[in-house]
Amino acid sequence: MPTPIKRTVFFISDGTGLTVEALGHSLLTQFEKVEFRQIRIPFLDSIDKAQDAVARINAQGEADGMRPIVFTTLIDAELAGIVHQADAFSMSYFETFLAPLENELGLKSSHTVGRSHGTADSSDYKNRIEAINYTLAHDDGITDRGLEEADVILVAVSRCGKTPTSLYLAMQFGLKAANFPLIPEDFDRGRLPGTLEKHRPKLFGLTIQPERLAQIREERRAASNYASLANCRYEIAEAEKMMRREGIRWLDSSTKSIEEISATILQELNLR
Amino acid sequence: MPTPIKRTVFFISDGTGLTVEALGHSLLTQFEKVEFRQIRIPFLDSIDKAQDAVARINAQGEADGMRPIVFTTLIDAELAGIVHQADAFSMSYFETFLAPLENELGLKSSHTVGRSHGTADSSDYKNRIEAINYTLAHDDGITDRGLEEADVILVAVSRCGKTPTSLYLAMQFGLKAANFPLIPEDFDRGRLPGTLEKHRPKLFGLTIQPERLAQIREERRAASNYASLANCRYEIAEAEKMMRREGIRWLDSSTKSIEEISATILQELNLR
Repeated sequence: MPTPIKRTVFFISDGTGLTVEALGHSLLTQFEKVEFRQIRIPFLDSIDKAQDAVARINAQGEADGMRPIVFTTLIDAELAGIVHQADAFSMSYFETFLAPLENELGLKSSHTVGRSHGTADSSDYKNRIEAINYTLAHDDGITDRGLEEADVILVAVSRCGKTPTSLYLAMQFGLKAANFPLIPEDFDRGRLPGTLEKHRPKLFGLTIQPERLAQIREERRAASNYASLANCRYEIAEAEKMMRREGIRWLDSSTKSIEEISATILQELNLR
Repeated sequence: MPTPIKRTVFFISDGTGLTVEALGHSLLTQFEKVEFRQIRIPFLDSIDKAQDAVARINAQGEADGMRPIVFTTLIDAELAGIVHQADAFSMSYFETFLAPLENELGLKSSHTVGRSHGTADSSDYKNRIEAINYTLAHDDGITDRGLEEADVILVAVSRCGKTPTSLYLAMQFGLKAANFPLIPEDFDRGRLPGTLEKHRPKLFGLTIQPERLAQIREERRAASNYASLANCRYEIAEAEKMMRREGIRWLDSSTKSIEEISATILQELNLR
């Protein structure tokens, strides 16, 4: 096997660096043959820190024998100028896009650092915290009180990803996401639990390939009927039959990330 | 008051669109005088959908009397080409950055769509799900079993943001984040709960301005001693004294977002 190409990548931001990292990451995944060592430098907000970053980038380049790749989102032009003096291949998100956008809008940007996540005193932030609390209190059918407040109610058999998806919807979008398990009693009765029926427009189903479900359940309760492939096939078939009959929209979570499942739900339920 | 400038912005992606939205949002927040109407079009993965998007953008432009602003991350060059025919001001993340990066790496990109979030069968994804389950099972001091597995243990008085921060660390970074409340008994005893002492290197504290804490607690339990400013001042002063004495790193969460708190914890504890 040939030695993989190795490159060091820095993500540098005056904020958390999460956005520039996500962005850079989506580009890097396009180069499968390269092994990227990724370093995030968040909260770069002073000349000292900018100079430290330059020293770190240059030292890394010498150690690697190859100049590092640097992605930045730095609003302060002076700090950006210092960081871009490093001996590196630099891609600057703000410098690239801000000027054309200023031009299009006919306005100068305010050059304010760190405004991209809502802070603790904003209403956006309060909504998120409230949504997280709601979602925790309405996980796995704990209670059917307050469902009229829910933005979405996920339904699925056990271990299809209801809880992580609900929490993501709350955390990322400030949505109140309840979730309910579909259990064999529901299938025997042949209809939705009464408490859910009146909230049908807010219901969204998750399903999964039975083989994958069996594997996930096996890790939790080995050699149980619960985890057996036959039982997983039965539960999934019944759940899909019920969702089809009740007109509940649903998706197969088998090969999807939490982000993809959540974005699909938003789109399908026309939320936000 | 002058009428605010209004512009419609589209975020278009072949994936969830979350990254391009975060990106665009960080630029848009630089223009406070403009009211942006933001529309996300995720999962654009066919010629039909690309043509629909063009129709939607053009219709919006006519309705607004002003061309929309379009941010895209579309890996497929044909789809990107169609979308960019719309009568809009377009900024294309991939087209702008991919070619220079190919050049630097001396490689062609694989042009594979939708690789930026780990999917359900990746080890990264399993780690995240496991971390979320761990964090839910170790919220608010529910149990002190299994703390040796924790990557980080947050400590704080009630209502400083322990739970949302723990969940974010698990969801975003796959970290096992436990959290423990600091309660008056701990202050009376004058030292950390014994169960936490042996995990000191993993401890991280949150604090908050007493005025802000009183306000948050008031919303939960109005007119209680728990929410009174005097009690909040006492608890915060004692908690900070304890953290200082025990050498626990901490931050003030008063004006920080969950993302900022989490990124700071990662940096301070040298995680990841």
